Amino acid sequence: MAEDEGRRVTITAIAREAGVSVPTVSRVLNGRSDVAPSTRERVEELLRTHGYRRRATRSRVSSSLIDLVFNDLDSPWAVEIIRGVEEMAHSAGVGTVVSAIHRRSTSARQWLQNLRARATDGVIYVNSDLTPPLHAELRRLNIPMVMVDPAGVPAIDVPTIGATNWAGGLAATEHLLSLGHRRIGFISGPKRLLCSRARLDGYRAGLEAVGIEVVDELLQPGDFYHESGYAGATALLALKNPPTAIFAASDQMAFGVYEGLRRQGLRVPDDISVIGFDDLPEARWASPPLTTIRQPLAEMGLLAARTVLRLAQGEEIETPRVELATELVVRHSTAPLG
Amino acid sequence: MAEDEGRRVTITAIAREAGVSVPTVSRVLNGRSDVAPSTRERVEELLRTHGYRRRATRSRVSSSLIDLVFNDLDSPWAVEIIRGVEEMAHSAGVGTVVSAIHRRSTSARQWLQNLRARATDGVIYVNSDLTPPLHAELRRLNIPMVMVDPAGVPAIDVPTIGATNWAGGLAATEHLLSLGHRRIGFISGPKRLLCSRARLDGYRAGLEAVGIEVVDELLQPGDFYHESGYAGATALLALKNPPTAIFAASDQMAFGVYEGLRRQGLRVPDDISVIGFDDLPEARWASPPLTTIRQPLAEMGLLAARTVLRLAQGEEIETPRVELATELVVRHSTAPLG
Repeated sequence: MAEDEGRRVTITAIAREAGVSVPTVSRVLNGRSDVAPSTRERVEELLRTHGYRRRATRSRVSSSLIDLVFNDLDSPWAVEIIRGVEEMAHSAGVGTVVSAIHRRSTSARQWLQNLRARATDGVIYVNSDLTPPLHAELRRLNIPMVMVDPAGVPAIDVPTIGATNWAGGLAATEHLLSLGHRRIGFISGPKRLLCSRARLDGYRAGLEAVGIEVVDELLQPGDFYHESGYAGATALLALKNPPTAIFAASDQMAFGVYEGLRRQGLRVPDDISVIGFDDLPEARWASPPLTTIRQPLAEMGLLAARTVLRLAQGEEIETPRVELATELVVRHSTAPLG
Repeated sequence: MAEDEGRRVTITAIAREAGVSVPTVSRVLNGRSDVAPSTRERVEELLRTHGYRRRATRSRVSSSLIDLVFNDLDSPWAVEIIRGVEEMAHSAGVGTVVSAIHRRSTSARQWLQNLRARATDGVIYVNSDLTPPLHAELRRLNIPMVMVDPAGVPAIDVPTIGATNWAGGLAATEHLLSLGHRRIGFISGPKRLLCSRARLDGYRAGLEAVGIEVVDELLQPGDFYHESGYAGATALLALKNPPTAIFAASDQMAFGVYEGLRRQGLRVPDDISVIGFDDLPEARWASPPLTTIRQPLAEMGLLAARTVLRLAQGEEIETPRVELATELVVRHSTAPLG
């Protein structure tokens, strides 16, 4: 076939240009380790120059496995993402290997070794601190990569699936405003994450749109975890003029807010309204059931799996960054200002 | 080596006895599909008669993968079990393939096909309705199997890792009794599951040990899910003489109890004490934090992974059923009878 001819010519050309044999180029393409580092570098440089990466991907032998990697498996939304990835992979006849690399470099090294041994078709990285060396190594192994990124880590050069955090922050704020609340506390996520800033900016935009000034004392720092929601609520209630509603930038922090209010003998939503962000399964089971902004975590996993499988087949991805829509889910933790 | 000699002789003998070639016996041992069903059956029968199964297991080529299978990935304790399995597998250099088979037979068939293609080292089945045909097929493929079984499905001939459900039911009841409660409601799990009966029997034993009669109207049916906890609490509160404490046989049902009480304007634990069973991460985040009986789910996953890897190496397992200890975790949802 013409396509194959074209490819063979290019490998030959690259071998010639690099001053190595054709099998050596193949070894580099297949990520094998029996190539001298300087040779590998020269060949990879030429492959890049000639835009060979995608085609090489198509020629890898499929293991019918994709790798789904978390920093830790302690996140409450992990199972939602696994569910989406598994559903897509399963229907494509592909197995989903789930790993946690625990932010330890020894663990990451071992993971990389295992990855190479099983010749994975692709890697989905979740909300991760993908280190530059690890990233470079995956590149070198020619393994397609996608990031799922509900927390909005600053982009590196990898397709990313996220959610519309700014629009979600705006929708939460508009919901509270529509119930008559004017003094709305905000408990933010970690400042270093883009999604935290996007949610905060959505909150600001919502207030400013109706001419309400953003007051510093109503902004509490948080880290997405339960304890910081508790601490934020406690601080907000200690104000001379406490808010009538609290927007916590994660469901877990909203649960912490619940507990902070309960400790002070206050009821949700009678005494104070609370809205979260995520729509974890737990939001439905909370008492009262939590009004929140839904991130479509399973759908994000599903799209990530579809994307990585497309990359593995050598397809081009049009949009390197996709944001799936968030959605307001009204339950029982918000009420009109009494 | 003597061991190898012995093995070769046996394969040869079996081939002779079955009237087939040695490669045919190998194909059967390796679970390949290119063997006539009648031949396979005859050879398998002989392999069984000669006790060949373990050795054959040892001779399989390792894929450095184990399969972790759920019915559905909607269970809140799934991520806990994944965490334990992954930790053990990761440290053994083995990947963990996570699947859901969705109780659909088509899905199970596809899963089985994928499983065969990737030559998994072993399968861990979680809380599953492992159907006899599926079980027989895994046997035929000569794939080691372990069940993790927080719900205590009646045993089939497979090593099982569970928790001490009866002792947990007893401990929960004793805790409430020690706080002065005498009228204790119980919301059970599905009757068909052994673990449900064990928890209920633990409750009965606790009451009877201090001479309290078990009252039928205090026993409410449930299915482990949130809604049935809500319904059970509502029914218990409607009694002429409602209980002062409720023992829900799962954390999710306990959260439903919270909501049932809140709807009636009752406070936990001021008006009524609540205890759960599981110790999901959510128990810590509930408001108030939930007193519960801890099932060591991650440890159960870890032990299951260790067991299936041992089986994959041809080791014998001494104890076909292991129950890991449950533990009372006292938080803020239980209080002395006022």
